[in-house]
This record gives sequence, structure tokens and C-alpha cells, in this order.
Amino acid sequence: MKKTNLIEGVNLSSSSSNTRYGKREDTALIVLDKNSVISGKFTSNKFQAAPVKIAKKHLKIRKRKQKTAFIINAGNANAGTGEQGKEDVKTCCEEVAKLLNIEEKNVIPFSTGIIGEYLETKKHIEALKKAEKKLNPFNWNKVSKSILTTDTKPKLISKEIQIGNKKILIKGFAKGSGMIRPDFATLLSFVFLDAKVNESLLANIHKTVLQESFESITVDGDTSPNDSSVLVATGRSGKQVLKNSKELSELTDKLKEIYKSLSLKIINDAEGSSKQILVKVTMAQTKKVAKSIAFNIAESLLVKTAFYGNDPNWGRILAAIGRTHGVKNVSKVDIKLNNIPLVIDGNRDQRYTELKAKKAAKAKVINIIVNLKDGEESFSVLTSDLTKEYVSINSDYKS
Amino acid sequence: MKKTNLIEGVNLSSSSSNTRYGKREDTALIVLDKNSVISGKFTSNKFQAAPVKIAKKHLKIRKRKQKTAFIINAGNANAGTGEQGKEDVKTCCEEVAKLLNIEEKNVIPFSTGIIGEYLETKKHIEALKKAEKKLNPFNWNKVSKSILTTDTKPKLISKEIQIGNKKILIKGFAKGSGMIRPDFATLLSFVFLDAKVNESLLANIHKTVLQESFESITVDGDTSPNDSSVLVATGRSGKQVLKNSKELSELTDKLKEIYKSLSLKIINDAEGSSKQILVKVTMAQTKKVAKSIAFNIAESLLVKTAFYGNDPNWGRILAAIGRTHGVKNVSKVDIKLNNIPLVIDGNRDQRYTELKAKKAAKAKVINIIVNLKDGEESFSVLTSDLTKEYVSINSDYKS
Repeated sequence: MKKTNLIEGVNLSSSSSNTRYGKREDTALIVLDKNSVISGKFTSNKFQAAPVKIAKKHLKIRKRKQKTAFIINAGNANAGTGEQGKEDVKTCCEEVAKLLNIEEKNVIPFSTGIIGEYLETKKHIEALKKAEKKLNPFNWNKVSKSILTTDTKPKLISKEIQIGNKKILIKGFAKGSGMIRPDFATLLSFVFLDAKVNESLLANIHKTVLQESFESITVDGDTSPNDSSVLVATGRSGKQVLKNSKELSELTDKLKEIYKSLSLKIINDAEGSSKQILVKVTMAQTKKVAKSIAFNIAESLLVKTAFYGNDPNWGRILAAIGRTHGVKNVSKVDIKLNNIPLVIDGNRDQRYTELKAKKAAKAKVINIIVNLKDGEESFSVLTSDLTKEYVSINSDYKS
Repeated sequence: MKKTNLIEGVNLSSSSSNTRYGKREDTALIVLDKNSVISGKFTSNKFQAAPVKIAKKHLKIRKRKQKTAFIINAGNANAGTGEQGKEDVKTCCEEVAKLLNIEEKNVIPFSTGIIGEYLETKKHIEALKKAEKKLNPFNWNKVSKSILTTDTKPKLISKEIQIGNKKILIKGFAKGSGMIRPDFATLLSFVFLDAKVNESLLANIHKTVLQESFESITVDGDTSPNDSSVLVATGRSGKQVLKNSKELSELTDKLKEIYKSLSLKIINDAEGSSKQILVKVTMAQTKKVAKSIAFNIAESLLVKTAFYGNDPNWGRILAAIGRTHGVKNVSKVDIKLNNIPLVIDGNRDQRYTELKAKKAAKAKVINIIVNLKDGEESFSVLTSDLTKEYVSINSDYKS
């Protein structure tokens, strides 16, 4: 990796705790230089894992002028583990703080894996100590692999962007192959840039880019006790991005692309999936209705199984629209499937032929375009199909 | 069938239209004597089939002093068929009206089956004419079979109840093996009693009994454009049930049992299911929250696949609770599985052992009891597991 392709101010490493995954690396340590700005967004699920509770707290009270460390373990979610779970996280944070000579509140913990098992704290601390010795700015590949659970592929993105006359480097990685699988996995995402962005601005950017990425994908409609997304601006390139600037909107757009790419990587690695399905709802009266319809279609078992079976089953799409709260009638609805007309004004399109529709439904990338002809708002959701393999993965007993 | 086991005032018959199902009977005609009182409840889906639109209209304007006919066809839902679909229903109603010498508005149509195909009206009318010739008060078995689509079993119930000093006979049948399968099927239910009940009272009873039966079951969370439930009081036994009477509450209780039995028959014949799962949420602050939680658990793909795999996965149950709108935290939640404690105060119960929990999860009848310890309201939902067979059934192309 070229020196120019590194995020100044980020050192990282991984190692094995020799627990759930044996010798496979499952423990990551990421150290940010002082003055890094961080935005963290966490699961909306009220069932929150111990590390999520502590990460939220530490992010609020950490000292910006010190280094900050992220510690991540895969294989154990440390959720549903009560007071013991919190104690275990604190012990890990404490040890890493000593090691790096920073305060405990500057250590931010993340976990992903099985629910309801206690952490093997000692082994994890050993792994963190080993990782500390190998910290360097190059280990992106290794670290992006170490946080995986049942994902089949790492999800790493690296991009240099030009905004105005500034070159900014962005690197990020994520994990997750269902929106949630409490047994083993859930979504974690870490994105870093070397530009200088102030905290409230960074939080705004983060919120904006999440809306069209991780908040617009679904595998099974479930959310997790461990979902975490972190956006970091190290500021080490010295290139500052200011409020209300043209550069800010350019940066936001570029980050949107990056978050969408990470989302797409997650959907394409969704549990058992054989297809990528984009549901786009257009010309709705409100964004809220557009979003509800898009999610109802994307999460309908009947729609998801139909596409698994290459069946252009517009009746199921129309039924998912018709049961959406806020929908008054379906008499103006048009539906297209990869540009093939299926439904016009709530009934079968006269141009519909089974041959064409069936051919379109065979594609590996499905675009369902719903036009409500009722307003100006739209919303898109990315999802996967529902296969026998999904049922296999999720019905296999965890042992 | 003994004469005493018949609903006076109901004659019924079935025949074959020789369409989708070949020689299998798929067309039913039910004729109610004059002065029958009817309550009809229909799908809440805004995508409504042509027969549903017309049934709702006819029930409002029909003449009580004339006979009333129900016509039912299986195999074609006549949904998403626009003006042509409505014309076809009207033609059928007209022909049956002529045949029975009643007005068109006294013919109430029901359809179930594939969406988006036009009715073969002539063939259906022929079948109705054939059926008319065979009308008698005995054909309950035949008719209960003729309305099935992919159901594997007929769902017929017959019961004589005693309320006060009156004997009342109730007979009813239903179909459906998913809450919806727009390709082939959805829920239809017809229940008849020989007591005399006035219209608003009957509508109230119907509403009450549906809440704890058809409105508390789910297979896949979808609703259909054809769902219809009809409750008829012929009044022919002369036994009147009055407002605010003890008899009324007894009748309502008995009907609840009957509707629950029909619901159970539907869940036990749910698409591809291998288990029956009851989710009971207790001690909630509001009925609304209890209901939302119960449905979120019952419709969670992760919970449904876990039980298919005999996995007592309480993390998934807790995650489904935690994402429910209106839930503030899960720190007081207890969960039991067939009396085996899983979770106490939001964490794994100290009495939990994997051996016991796993054994409990193997049962064919699963009771998940969630205690929120937060109020006095409760709600139960009956559902099935999610199996590879479900995915097979719903991904098989319709041809």
C-alpha cells in the first residue's frame, strides 16, 4: 500500500483471541491520533448490548485532546449479559487504556456475534495486547476481515476524492450479512477520512448519508442489539471542510456513494440471497408513505420468495402496497419491473405479457419501480430475495 | 347427517366449473331463507378484489325479506381485473338472481385464487346452475371442500350449544393456509347459526369474536385483496338472543371458541409449517403495545426459522421486542418457553439450561410467554414456523 493511500492519524491491527473462531483473527484495535472527530450512530433497538451502552457513554465524555481507541471483537455480541457483561467491557477498556496511556473513557468498544454468552475477557485482553504490538497504518485488509462473523466476504472501500482543490482520502469497512442475526452477527461500520470537520458538522453528514444507505436496506426486517456505525475525521491532512461550503456538499455526496457501496456489499452478501432487489417508490404524497410502502414490499415474504422463484408476481406487490398504513386506494398505481410494465392504474397493464415479465424476473438485479401518481416524494429500499438457504442458515442450531 | 344437525334456513351445494381445477368442485352456492341476518367483514387491504367491492355494496342494499344467495368460486380471485372484473361479477350475480327469482343485490359474491386473471364467466354460471339443481340442507362437507385452494384439509365445524334453556346450532367453514397467498388463496370464512339475532347485535358479536381469532393469527404478515368473513343468523329456530342478555354473552363466548377453532385449523394447515406457535404477551401498559410486540415476535423471520430449527433463541425474541414501537426498554422482560424460563429482567435467566430449553423448543406446539411486568394488558397471536417448504411453495412459479 502506498504511503499516499493511508489515512494519516489512524493506526490499526488485529489478532486472535483463540475463542469462538480458533486461530482466525477476531479482535481489532484501531488507534486514532489526538484531535480526531468522531460521530457514532447506534441501533435503535431498545435491547442494547453492553458495548453499545458503554460506547455511547464514552463517545460523549472522551477527551478529544487524547488519542482514542476502538476495540472490536467478533464472535460474541456481549448482549443480554446484564451487569457482568458491562463489567467485562469495562475491564477490556481499562486494560487497553493502560496499554496506550490514555483514559478509559477514550476506549470505545464494539462487539458482534452470539447473544447471551459472557465474554472470555482474559483471552480478549491478551489478543488486544498482541494487536497493540503490531499497530501500523497499513493493516486495513486484515482488520476488515477480523470483524466478520458469517459474512462470506470482507467489505472494504478506499477512495481518494477531489473536492474543490483539496484531495481527501476516505477508507472504510463494514460487516453484516443480515440486518441482524442475533446468533452471530449484525452490522458494524467504520469509515475514516483525513479531512478536518467539526463535530456537529460530522454528525450531520453521518446522519444524512445513513438515511440513503444503512437505513434503506433490509434483509429480514429485524434490527440488532449491536448495530454501530462510526464516522471519523482525523483532520491530519489539514484540509478543513466548513459549514455551508460547496466543499461540504461535495464531501457529503461522495460519502453517500461510499456508504451506498458498503450497503450494496452487505445486500450482495445477505444470508442465502440469490438476487439484489431495489424497490423504488415514486410520486408519493409524503416521504413517510413512500418509505412505508418501499419497506412493506421489500420485507414481504411473498414478494421475496416470488423473485427467488423468478416469478413477476405483481399481485403480491400490489397487496403489499394496499396494506400499507396511509394508502387510501391503489387505483392509480403503476408498477414496472426492470422497465417491463406490469400494472397500470391498479390493474394489469395491457402491454403486459407473461413471457416478457418472466424474463425480466429472472435477472439477478431486480428493479421494482412503483409510481403512485399522487405527489412528488420518493424513497428507495435495497433488499435481497428469500431463499431456502436463508431458512437453512437461520434454522441451524447455533452449536 | 341427522335432521337435527342442520341449520334451518340454509341450503347449499357445489359443482365444478371445469376451469383451473378440472373436474374438482370449485363453485359453491349457498341460499339463505328470507329474514336471515348477515354480518360481513372484509379485508382491510386497499387493493380489493371485484367480488369484495360488490359483496360489500350488496350487503348494504339487499332486501332482508327476500332470500339471499352466496356464490363462491375457488381458483380465481378476480382481483386486479379492473372494470372487466366487476362486469363479470355482476353477470354472475344477475344470472343467479334470475335462477332464484330474487334481486341481483341479494346475491353476494366471493372469490379466492389467482390474481390478475379474468373469470371464465360462462363456465362459472354453468356451474352455479348445476349447483342450484342440487341445493339441499346436507351438503356441508362438499361445500367446505369446494372453496379450498392450496389448503390441504377442509376446515368445517359443527356445534350445538346450550345457552340458558335454548339449544342453538352453529355450523361454519373456512379456508386459507396463509394469511394471504395472492397467487392462489386467502382467507374465506362462513359461519351460520339458527338463532334470531338483530343486525347490529350480530355485527358486534362478529367484530368481537374476530379480534381473538382471525385478527390474531399470522402466517407471513401479509393481507389479501379477497379476505372475507361472514356470520349469518337465520333466525329459523325462533330462539331470539337479545341485547345485554346473559344469553348474548354466552353465545359470544361459544362463537369465540368456534372462531378460534377455525383459526387453529388454518394455522395448523399454514403453508409448509411444521409447528404451531402461540405468542402471549402479558402485563403490558397498553393493549396496543402488547399486540405490536406479539405480532413482531410472531412475524420475525428469525424467530420463525429458529423454532423450525428447534432453537430456543431468546436473543431473537428479545430483539423483536426491543424494536417494537412504544417499547422503552427491555430491562424488566421475562420470557418463558413452554414453562421453561429463558429470560429474566432482560437477561438470561439463571435457571436457564441449554438442555432444557432445547428440549422445550423441539415441541410441535410452542408457547412463548412474554411478561413485560409493566401493566395489566395482554395479547396473544397464533402463528406457524418458517420452513424451507414455505419458501418452496411460494417460490414455485404459478404456472
